[in-house]
Amino acid sequence: MSAAPEIHIEPGAPEPDWLAVDWGTSHVRAWFLRGRRVVGWATSADGMGTLEPDGFEPALLRLLPMPDARLSVMICGMAGSRQGWIEAPYAATPCVPPTAERAVRAPTRTDRLDVRILPGIKQVDPADVMRGEETQIAGFLALNPGYDGIVCLPGTHSKWVHVSAGEVVSFRTFMTGELFSLLSTQSVLRHSMAVDGLDEDVFLSAMSRGLSRPASLGSDLFALRAEALLNDLPPVVARSRLSGLLVGMELAAAKPYWLGQQVAVLGAKGLANAYRISLEDQGLPVMIADAERMTLEGLKAAYFAEQDADARTGS
Amino acid sequence: MSAAPEIHIEPGAPEPDWLAVDWGTSHVRAWFLRGRRVVGWATSADGMGTLEPDGFEPALLRLLPMPDARLSVMICGMAGSRQGWIEAPYAATPCVPPTAERAVRAPTRTDRLDVRILPGIKQVDPADVMRGEETQIAGFLALNPGYDGIVCLPGTHSKWVHVSAGEVVSFRTFMTGELFSLLSTQSVLRHSMAVDGLDEDVFLSAMSRGLSRPASLGSDLFALRAEALLNDLPPVVARSRLSGLLVGMELAAAKPYWLGQQVAVLGAKGLANAYRISLEDQGLPVMIADAERMTLEGLKAAYFAEQDADARTGS
Repeated sequence: MSAAPEIHIEPGAPEPDWLAVDWGTSHVRAWFLRGRRVVGWATSADGMGTLEPDGFEPALLRLLPMPDARLSVMICGMAGSRQGWIEAPYAATPCVPPTAERAVRAPTRTDRLDVRILPGIKQVDPADVMRGEETQIAGFLALNPGYDGIVCLPGTHSKWVHVSAGEVVSFRTFMTGELFSLLSTQSVLRHSMAVDGLDEDVFLSAMSRGLSRPASLGSDLFALRAEALLNDLPPVVARSRLSGLLVGMELAAAKPYWLGQQVAVLGAKGLANAYRISLEDQGLPVMIADAERMTLEGLKAAYFAEQDADARTGS
Repeated sequence: MSAAPEIHIEPGAPEPDWLAVDWGTSHVRAWFLRGRRVVGWATSADGMGTLEPDGFEPALLRLLPMPDARLSVMICGMAGSRQGWIEAPYAATPCVPPTAERAVRAPTRTDRLDVRILPGIKQVDPADVMRGEETQIAGFLALNPGYDGIVCLPGTHSKWVHVSAGEVVSFRTFMTGELFSLLSTQSVLRHSMAVDGLDEDVFLSAMSRGLSRPASLGSDLFALRAEALLNDLPPVVARSRLSGLLVGMELAAAKPYWLGQQVAVLGAKGLANAYRISLEDQGLPVMIADAERMTLEGLKAAYFAEQDADARTGS
């Protein structure tokens, strides 16, 4: 059993009638909503990676402070993977981000919960997958209707996505964040590395090196170790260079996506900012949006899709 | 305390008078010698990474089946690092591989052991270091006097070394082996990966891809995961492609070393063979030598350097 969840309810708010849930590999986050109004939220470390299929319902119930409420639940993310609560088979590119009608109903033992899980999106060639990011894109499109261009979602598995006419046209995933995490905490470089802090000048200079000389990554990495041994390289400089080299290598490979394009970066603040200054360094105009807010907006868009469509057609 | 060491003594062999020791991060291996003749060997998991400075002498004594012998000991590798038994400060390029006269005497509590540790080699710009490989190079040069060209030492931290007139002129280190280990056992790719086996055709094709498109590593890696999810990519194919992509990226960056050169690969059999077929695929003639044997020959060369020099000068 994991640590107790963190739960916040807005004092005096109306009872929620549904839950918007982002279920990742390491964490789950739920928003309590009454219609479109957020009245609270809860989070725990009961990520998909820690749960068997029959563990999802109890983990969700632990997030609920209202013992008797009957709730609809709309979930995005890894809960819909093959190792999750129930598999929500991928939609295939090109496609609009999946909404309620594509969602898969999850089995529950209590009749208090009516649970649906949104599918991710797959691309056949080159093979690629996303689960969760499609909902962030849906949220971004809900707030920026008619957006046509590139959406970049930096993270453990960074995504570059071509969005046009409301559809995900194509995308590529880069293991940049996972490489950073492995190298900074598990490799020989961990001895030379600060656990946080970023020197923007060092980051940008290394980003530029990674972008222009991506092949040299393997030796540029070991040079961090050698400079720490021989020249007492400051740990924040080492961390900033590692980050810059990896982001630069990603930008080199993602160039067909961003060159001459409009780019929206959806990410947590510090990470989104690192990508923003990297792309601005290449002369691109960049807009930023908060990933967590986009997820919530995307879950709302998916949940209300049918009635929004009804409203639009006047039925 | 670690597992018991493995010890082999040749039946009926003369008593050893010295030990040649390769002390790495995760293991230690000692050869028992009488003059130039190997009469046994021992190994244990008492690597530098598991020992405090005062733990090296007991770890060495545990390898000895001869309780009363008085022995000279010549060590190469991580025992001479700052975190090791005692620091043996780096020699600087360009230099010959260090021999006994550059070795640092290690403190011992018993007078049975006379222990010396060989320095590694550093390069100031670009910053780089080696500890242990210089002794393999010394061994290779002892068996191939006058060799002029490139020595490649694949491994956790692969080295490419320019050797000329008996000296290490310059070198670069690549984190290829460590990246392979982290990605195949710690990353999301571990779910898709065989623990051994190599399909040579798949390896060579991925190597060629990594060599020509090194920037794409981040997305080529995630494609292994996506193809496992979508197309049931066979685990041995995934492992062969991961290995090929990483070796290809290394060859792309190391091209100034090998292009148009004579290359000797010093490595364990399977790994050396992977580099050999990769370089032959690029049209290079390649010679291979066993890394462990080169280490032993290098320790012998270091140990006997003074008397060999005396013999050459006729004194």
